[in-house]
Amino acid sequence: MTEKTDRRVVIIGGVAAGMKTAARLRRLDPEAEIMVIDRCKEVSYGACTLPYYIEGLFSDLNDARKTPNGVLRDEGFFERIKGIKVRPGTEAVFIDRKKKQVRLHCRTQETEEDLAYDQLVLATGNRSLLPPVPGVDLEGVRALKNPGDAATLAELATKARSAVVVGAGLIGLEMTQALATRGIKVTLIEMKDQVLASALDFGMAALVHRELRKQGVDLKLGESLRKIEGEDGRVTQVTTDAGSYPADMVVIAIGVRPETTLAQQAGLEIGETGAIAVDAHMRTSDLDIYAAGDCVESVDLISGRKVYVPLGSTANKQGRVVADNLAGRPATFPGILGSLIVKVFGLTVARTGLSFEDACLLGRDPVTILVPGPDRSHVYPGVKPVVIKLVADRADRRLLGAQIVGPGAVDKRIDTLATALTLGADVDQLANLDLTYAPPYSSAVDVLHQAANALRNKLDGIGESLDPVEVKQRMAEKDDFLFLDVRSPAEYAEVRIPGAVHLPLGALRARLKDLPPNREIIPFCKQSLRGFEAQKILQAAGFTRVRYMEGGILGWPYALETGL
Amino acid sequence: MTEKTDRRVVIIGGVAAGMKTAARLRRLDPEAEIMVIDRCKEVSYGACTLPYYIEGLFSDLNDARKTPNGVLRDEGFFERIKGIKVRPGTEAVFIDRKKKQVRLHCRTQETEEDLAYDQLVLATGNRSLLPPVPGVDLEGVRALKNPGDAATLAELATKARSAVVVGAGLIGLEMTQALATRGIKVTLIEMKDQVLASALDFGMAALVHRELRKQGVDLKLGESLRKIEGEDGRVTQVTTDAGSYPADMVVIAIGVRPETTLAQQAGLEIGETGAIAVDAHMRTSDLDIYAAGDCVESVDLISGRKVYVPLGSTANKQGRVVADNLAGRPATFPGILGSLIVKVFGLTVARTGLSFEDACLLGRDPVTILVPGPDRSHVYPGVKPVVIKLVADRADRRLLGAQIVGPGAVDKRIDTLATALTLGADVDQLANLDLTYAPPYSSAVDVLHQAANALRNKLDGIGESLDPVEVKQRMAEKDDFLFLDVRSPAEYAEVRIPGAVHLPLGALRARLKDLPPNREIIPFCKQSLRGFEAQKILQAAGFTRVRYMEGGILGWPYALETGL
Repeated sequence: MTEKTDRRVVIIGGVAAGMKTAARLRRLDPEAEIMVIDRCKEVSYGACTLPYYIEGLFSDLNDARKTPNGVLRDEGFFERIKGIKVRPGTEAVFIDRKKKQVRLHCRTQETEEDLAYDQLVLATGNRSLLPPVPGVDLEGVRALKNPGDAATLAELATKARSAVVVGAGLIGLEMTQALATRGIKVTLIEMKDQVLASALDFGMAALVHRELRKQGVDLKLGESLRKIEGEDGRVTQVTTDAGSYPADMVVIAIGVRPETTLAQQAGLEIGETGAIAVDAHMRTSDLDIYAAGDCVESVDLISGRKVYVPLGSTANKQGRVVADNLAGRPATFPGILGSLIVKVFGLTVARTGLSFEDACLLGRDPVTILVPGPDRSHVYPGVKPVVIKLVADRADRRLLGAQIVGPGAVDKRIDTLATALTLGADVDQLANLDLTYAPPYSSAVDVLHQAANALRNKLDGIGESLDPVEVKQRMAEKDDFLFLDVRSPAEYAEVRIPGAVHLPLGALRARLKDLPPNREIIPFCKQSLRGFEAQKILQAAGFTRVRYMEGGILGWPYALETGL
Repeated sequence: MTEKTDRRVVIIGGVAAGMKTAARLRRLDPEAEIMVIDRCKEVSYGACTLPYYIEGLFSDLNDARKTPNGVLRDEGFFERIKGIKVRPGTEAVFIDRKKKQVRLHCRTQETEEDLAYDQLVLATGNRSLLPPVPGVDLEGVRALKNPGDAATLAELATKARSAVVVGAGLIGLEMTQALATRGIKVTLIEMKDQVLASALDFGMAALVHRELRKQGVDLKLGESLRKIEGEDGRVTQVTTDAGSYPADMVVIAIGVRPETTLAQQAGLEIGETGAIAVDAHMRTSDLDIYAAGDCVESVDLISGRKVYVPLGSTANKQGRVVADNLAGRPATFPGILGSLIVKVFGLTVARTGLSFEDACLLGRDPVTILVPGPDRSHVYPGVKPVVIKLVADRADRRLLGAQIVGPGAVDKRIDTLATALTLGADVDQLANLDLTYAPPYSSAVDVLHQAANALRNKLDGIGESLDPVEVKQRMAEKDDFLFLDVRSPAEYAEVRIPGAVHLPLGALRARLKDLPPNREIIPFCKQSLRGFEAQKILQAAGFTRVRYMEGGILGWPYALETGL
C-alpha cells in the first residue's frame, strides 16, 4: 500500500472531467496530492476530434492529445507543469468505501495495490454499446471511443472501398461523413425511421436524410441489424431485416452507456437513467466521492427531469464544479439543455431544449414554427440558408426548444437560442433581442427574428400555418386542398413541389376571382414570407379556409422536381 | 387636397422603419389606406449594404432594393403585392397637427398639396453630418447615405488612386475597407485617439488599429480636419492639424444626426439626445403620431438612459411595434444594447452593452477580463482566434457588456452575450450555458466559457491579473516588474513582446529559486491560460506579488517582435 500524504484526492478517469478536476484543483489547492488513474495508456485526449482524424483533417493522432500550443498532455506534462500524478494503464478494480481506498491493477506489470484516498472522483466515462448479433467480433468491426480505436478505424479506412455504419446518432453521422468524404461507399443503417431520433423532430431529420442521400450515402432507415458476416475472420457484409450490404469495415455507433461498474460495486446510488446519481454539487451518495462527465446523469433545465447526455463540454463544466467543491468553494452545476451540433457534409444540424415530440410527451401544449432564411444579407457573397424550428409553450409563450438545419451559420443561432432558453425568454423577448447586424453576418431582420415573429403571429392568430410534414401527410391521405405556390415564374421553373399549382404573389390580387371560394388553400413560397403574405391577401378578400405552409421550398424535406 | 377615405395612415420615410410599418400594417389591417411619402426617388433600399456595393461585392446597385428572390421593391411592387401606395420624390414639408394633414411638395412636378391623415408615422431617418471646413462642397467629396451616394462613390472609386476617409466609426471603417480592397491608397482620419471611440475600450480598438495598418491603411488618429483642397473644383488633398494627405476622393463619415426638422416644426417633443422622443409604444408627444427608426432615440437596456444608435435592425423592430399599435394591438419596444458589428478586413469587430469606460462613467464598479482563444477545436481546419473582453458588475456579478475582436467567429459569441445581457445573466450563469459543442464549431471549453471562468476567477480572487493596456502604461512609466513570457521556446522564437523575459512554463517549477522573491512578476503566454497557471505556481511557491497579464500575445495590441 502506497504511503499516504497530507490530503490525497484520487481521480479515476483521465479524459475530460477527470483532467479538468485535477487541473482546477491544483490551481485552487497547491498542497493536496492529486492522483489520476486511467486504465488506458493515453489520457487527456479530445475524444470528439477523433472522427476528424479519421476523415483526414489532421494527420497526427497525437494532435488530439496536445494543447493548442503543441505540447503533448502526457504523464510528464501533468507532473512537470501541473504537479499532478497520472498513472495510465492502471485500472481501478474495487473501491473500499469504509477503508477509503481503491484497489489498483497495473495492466503492464500485472500487479495490484491499494491506494488510500481522502476524496475520490469518479470520471469513468462511458462505454460503447455493442449489438447482440453474430459477427460483432470480426476483424474490421469497431466502435469509436479512444485514440486506439481511431488509429484502427483510420487504418481500415485507407483500404476499405465499402463501409457500413450502424446507428445514426452523433458519432454515426460524423463517421458516415468521415468515411464518405474519403471516397468510401457508406451504408448507414438506423433502426428508427430517422437520424438523431432522440434529438430532432422528423421534418428536421428529413432535411438531413436528403443531404445524406445527395452525398451518395446509402441511408437505410427502419432496418434492424441481424448479423455481421465475414471471411477468414474479416468482415465482408452486414445483414439487416431488409437486406445485405457490402462492408470492408463496420463502425458500430448504436450509442453509449455510462461506465458505472465501479460505482455499482461500491454501492453508490445509480440514477433512473442508469448513470451515477449526483447532487447539484456533483457529489454521489457518498460524501467523499464525487462524480462527473459521461458517467453521471444531469438535470434537464426545461423539463426538470434527469437525463443522460454525455458530452465533452458538459464534462469540463462539471469537472470545474467538482474541483471547486473539493477545494472548499461550494459550487453547483445547474443542468443542461441537451444542446447538440453536428456537421453532416454541407449541413450543420443542431438542437437545444425540447423538441415538439419531447414537449408533447411531457404533457406540455407546444406550438412550433418552421422558418428558413438567409444567414446574412442576401447581397453578401457566401449567403446560405438555415432552417429554424422553434418550439414554445402556448400558454406562457416561453421558448421550450429549437432545432436548426442548413448550410448556413446554424451554430450562431442555436447558441443564441440556447442562451435565451436557459434564461427563460419568451418569444416576444426573442423577437426584440438586440443582436448584432451588418450585411456580412446577418440580415436587417435576421432569420432568428423572422422565426420569432412568425411564431408570435401564430400564437396571436395572425398567421395560420401548417408544417410541411402535416401537408405531406394530408397529401398522402388525399385530403382536398389547393396547394398554391406563389413564387415567381423563374423560381418555379427552377424547382417545384410536385402537386402544387403556380400563381405568383404579384398576380394574386388580380386573380382572386379565379380561386375556389370554399376550398381550403395552402399557399407557400421559398421560405414562408410570401406564403404568409398570400394568406393575408386571401383572408382579406374573404377566403376563410387559408393556412400557409411553413418553411416553403427550403423547409420541404421531401422530393422536389427540378427544371422544366 | 386629396380625397380622404375610410382610415388613412401616412408614413413619412420609405426605407427600413417606414416600409416595415407599412407592410406589417397591411397584413394586420386589410382596409386602411396606407401611403408612404419619401423625398428620394428610391425607397426600401438596404442602406447597410451600400459599402459592399462600393467594394464591388455585388455589381447591380438595384440588388440593394430587391427582395431576396430578386423582385425590385419599387412603387409598383408595393402597390401590386402589398396594397401600399408609395410616393417617391415627394417631400413632406409641413405637418398641421390641428388639421391632421401634411403639406407635400412633389419634387419632379414642383407642385404642392395637403394630405389628410388619421395617423401619421415619422420614419424620417438620419442625415449625415458634414464638417464645417472649407472644401466640403468640392467634387469628389461625399457622405454615404443612399443609393445615389453609393453610385457616385463607386464611380469615383473606379478612377481614384488615393482616398481620404474622415471619421472612423462604422461607416468610416466599412468605406476604408471597401476602398482599400479595391486597391486605393486610403488615409483614415479620426479626431479621437482610437477607432469606434463610443463603442470600444482603447485596448480593443488598438487591435483594430494594428489590422488597419497591416492592410496598408494610413491611419491618422487624434487629427482634426482643417480643410479640403482642390483644383478646378475637384478635390486633391485633405489637410488636418498635423498634415496633408492626397485624395482623389473623400468620404465624409463623421457621424449622423436624426432627421427631426419636420418633428420640430410640428412641435413634437425632442429627446435629450436630439432625436424624436417616443414612449415604449413608439408614440411621439402627439397621440396620433408615431415615430420609428433612425429619427428616434431608444432606451439603453443596461443603463436605462436614452441613447441614439441608428441601425437598420432596430428600425425594423420598431416599425413592427408601430404597425401593431396602429392596428389596435398594443405592443412595446423594450430598448437596445448598442450592439454593433463591423468587418474590418480580416477582423470582425463587435460589441454589446456597456464598455468599461461607459460603466465607469455611469458610476458602476465594473470588473473586466480579456481572454483570447480559438473559435473552434484547435485541430480543426480553419481555426482562428477571437479576443473577448467581458465587463461585469463587481457587486452582483452581472454581465454589463462585451467586446470581441478577431479573425474568428466573433458574431456567434457576441450574439450569445447580447442575449445573456438582455436577460440579466451573471458570469456564473454564462460559464454554465449549455452551448453547442463539436470540433468544427467550438472547443470543449469554448472561448466564451473560458472568458466567463477567467472573470469568475478574478471576481473570486483566484486569478489576479492586469490588462495589456495597464501593463503597457506601467512599462511607459518605467515601473519595476519582471515581465515573464512562459510560452515554449518555439513560440518565443516566432513572436515576442519587447522587454519580456522568457522562461517556459514547463521549466518554471524547477527554476523558482532563480526568480526574485520580492519583485513584482507579471507572467503571460499566448492567450492567458499558462500565464494564469504560472501565477498559481508562483503564488504556491510563496511569491506574493504576482499578477498575470490578461490576453497574452493575442490580446497585446502593441508592436511585436518577430523572428530571432
